[in-house]
Amino acid sequence: MNAELITIGDEILIGQIVDTNSAWIAEKLNLIGIKVEKIVSIPDSKKVIEKTIDEAFREFDIIIMTGGLGPTNDDITKSTLNGYFQGQYVIHKPSLEQISSIFSRRGMELTELNRKQAEVPNCCTVLLNQLGTAPGMWFEKDKKILVSLPGVPFEMIGLMGNEVLPRLSKINSNQHIVHRTIQTFGLPESFLAEKITNWENQLPAIIKLAYLPSPNSIRLRLSAYGSKETNLEKTIQDEVDKLYKVIPDYIFGEGDVTLQEVVGQLLKKNRATLSTAESCTGGTISHLITLIPGSSSYFKGSIIAYSNEVKENILGVDSELIEKYGAVSKQVVEAMVRGVKSNLGTNCAIAVSGIAGPDGGTPDKPVGTVWIAVATDKSLASRELKLSSDRERNIIRSSVTALNMLRLTLIDENL
Amino acid sequence: MNAELITIGDEILIGQIVDTNSAWIAEKLNLIGIKVEKIVSIPDSKKVIEKTIDEAFREFDIIIMTGGLGPTNDDITKSTLNGYFQGQYVIHKPSLEQISSIFSRRGMELTELNRKQAEVPNCCTVLLNQLGTAPGMWFEKDKKILVSLPGVPFEMIGLMGNEVLPRLSKINSNQHIVHRTIQTFGLPESFLAEKITNWENQLPAIIKLAYLPSPNSIRLRLSAYGSKETNLEKTIQDEVDKLYKVIPDYIFGEGDVTLQEVVGQLLKKNRATLSTAESCTGGTISHLITLIPGSSSYFKGSIIAYSNEVKENILGVDSELIEKYGAVSKQVVEAMVRGVKSNLGTNCAIAVSGIAGPDGGTPDKPVGTVWIAVATDKSLASRELKLSSDRERNIIRSSVTALNMLRLTLIDENL
Repeated sequence: MNAELITIGDEILIGQIVDTNSAWIAEKLNLIGIKVEKIVSIPDSKKVIEKTIDEAFREFDIIIMTGGLGPTNDDITKSTLNGYFQGQYVIHKPSLEQISSIFSRRGMELTELNRKQAEVPNCCTVLLNQLGTAPGMWFEKDKKILVSLPGVPFEMIGLMGNEVLPRLSKINSNQHIVHRTIQTFGLPESFLAEKITNWENQLPAIIKLAYLPSPNSIRLRLSAYGSKETNLEKTIQDEVDKLYKVIPDYIFGEGDVTLQEVVGQLLKKNRATLSTAESCTGGTISHLITLIPGSSSYFKGSIIAYSNEVKENILGVDSELIEKYGAVSKQVVEAMVRGVKSNLGTNCAIAVSGIAGPDGGTPDKPVGTVWIAVATDKSLASRELKLSSDRERNIIRSSVTALNMLRLTLIDENL
Repeated sequence: MNAELITIGDEILIGQIVDTNSAWIAEKLNLIGIKVEKIVSIPDSKKVIEKTIDEAFREFDIIIMTGGLGPTNDDITKSTLNGYFQGQYVIHKPSLEQISSIFSRRGMELTELNRKQAEVPNCCTVLLNQLGTAPGMWFEKDKKILVSLPGVPFEMIGLMGNEVLPRLSKINSNQHIVHRTIQTFGLPESFLAEKITNWENQLPAIIKLAYLPSPNSIRLRLSAYGSKETNLEKTIQDEVDKLYKVIPDYIFGEGDVTLQEVVGQLLKKNRATLSTAESCTGGTISHLITLIPGSSSYFKGSIIAYSNEVKENILGVDSELIEKYGAVSKQVVEAMVRGVKSNLGTNCAIAVSGIAGPDGGTPDKPVGTVWIAVATDKSLASRELKLSSDRERNIIRSSVTALNMLRLTLIDENL
């Protein structure tokens, strides 16, 4: 089966936002064996939407459409689809309840505009949007499928995961595909490629390998294609086992797991607690850790010591150390990690101090110089990074590198 | 004049990379009055490329095409264009010199594959790529224009800036477009729409309005279309002025500005300093503030008090308060804001305590209950939010709402 993705909305065509939805949907459809052959962005125009659907139905089995479902006048996707499929508007009760509950939770009155969001064409299967006010719609025509979803990324992701992908998987169940995603951190893409080149060259022909780099990790995705009978799980498991032997230290997990989740699991397993002292990362490590539900069981808190006074007064760093070695130094970052660990009374602690940029660099310590320290009840170690000139990248790279240092320490000490 | 953007390459269709080129090109074309009416991603297939060009030439004046110009066999854009425009390959000497110099700089020998990159159809204007090995190509046919550029973002950007945009500006010097983006926070989309409905209805026909919601703000984009002679700047300015009178408190800035930038500017203007005490937001406010270059001039630091011990020991919150009212309460969040303001010695402070979820809710205080306090040298105020059941959204909404509370306070107190 093949598919076209249609993004509706002027904001993409004037370059105000980047279309991240299409890449997300394309990846998920590929994972269940549906090939995306065209992605198109078009304006909020009835005529253009109709023409695009006509053309897409001629060539593709599935159309996934996002955007244009808001309550305001510029959003015309629903009315266009209602006309296209010759439907009549009816109120979808579960959606109306969902919309009402969102508004009552926020203590706000339901407007007529919002009530109208629960109106849907009577010729579609309604997909309940549990995270927003615009319901998804599933149309069928001549064995072809058109799905319309809101353009807000987390609402789209929710509807795809809960409603669309399970339905499409069932329909497209004759093809057999198995994927495994291995999460690595600590080797740049070209170094990783060199290190695993022999392993890559011996992969069986039915397995395809993709490198998916991001600031937080490089994911290696193995995809095995075959018929129902082939034992794809075993074939792929054998290759994953080999890969673990080639780069044991660089693999931190599989699937969608994040480094902060892995660190959390290690801490939980050992009933250990964590605190952080952050200068240049400005709370990013703490932010990443606390995104994880349940993190309060191992994470006690942080001191974000953006100024030297905070380093001295709250973390107890000796002002002479800062004067002598500078705030970005082995001596200061180690004093920071000792300070936060003892003040917050945790078993483990992370400290980071660096020059994120764009200003603040010196010939000795250029922008991108970062010191990280990790302490446990058994050890204290520190490390210098030389990163880039890009502030945002430096902040995220420092944060993730610090989490990875703690991960390796916890494993090492069998904590 | 109008345009279609065509992105060529399988990596976008399998979701391996997000197409950021199209948004960049669309924005630049819009700024010189060329309207992008379609963006499409297609595979490396001769047949599909030819068909897409045929269709695009029927509807649009300009085609900008990126990707598929690499040296390997899977890249077929150049050969397809050579066939489509019935050209003959000739060596473009400046490109050959450029390619040779790149390879000699890297200490590598020039391969036949790379030498071939300097071959171009003799029916196009060659655009010298100063940042890479694949030259850009400019074709004309029946007064229509097709430009082919490499897909590597920084090479594409270099060629657009040096070669394509200057040429297109000259050709399209009669049409005129002006955009203004107004950033709002504090009103959900439907409430905002209702509040500005009278203003919206009286907008002159040449102005189009779009709502662009995100967790951090709802942007209102006004676009005015006309000829060089019309005073679009004045027309749009008049409407923006009226809008400011309708929703003065909800507008925090224009263009790409973020709430944390606006807060930073207000603090800087008044030489005031800021600290935060965060429980459920876990460092997110601090993270947002410190993403801004130069934030160290007004931001001193944070206490991330994820556990009650940290609230008591570092922020000095009375344990009896926590016992009596709970950690998520007006009393505790106000004690937190006093604690961090005095301990870190700042003029302003923000504190947040809430139940981000998914666990931790009670009938009295369900998931999504959040208390925010804002203190300055002149005042202390607190407020309760009732948010959703989604942890990540609750964290970001609480953080941005807290920043907005501080913004309004700073303006109010003319600090």
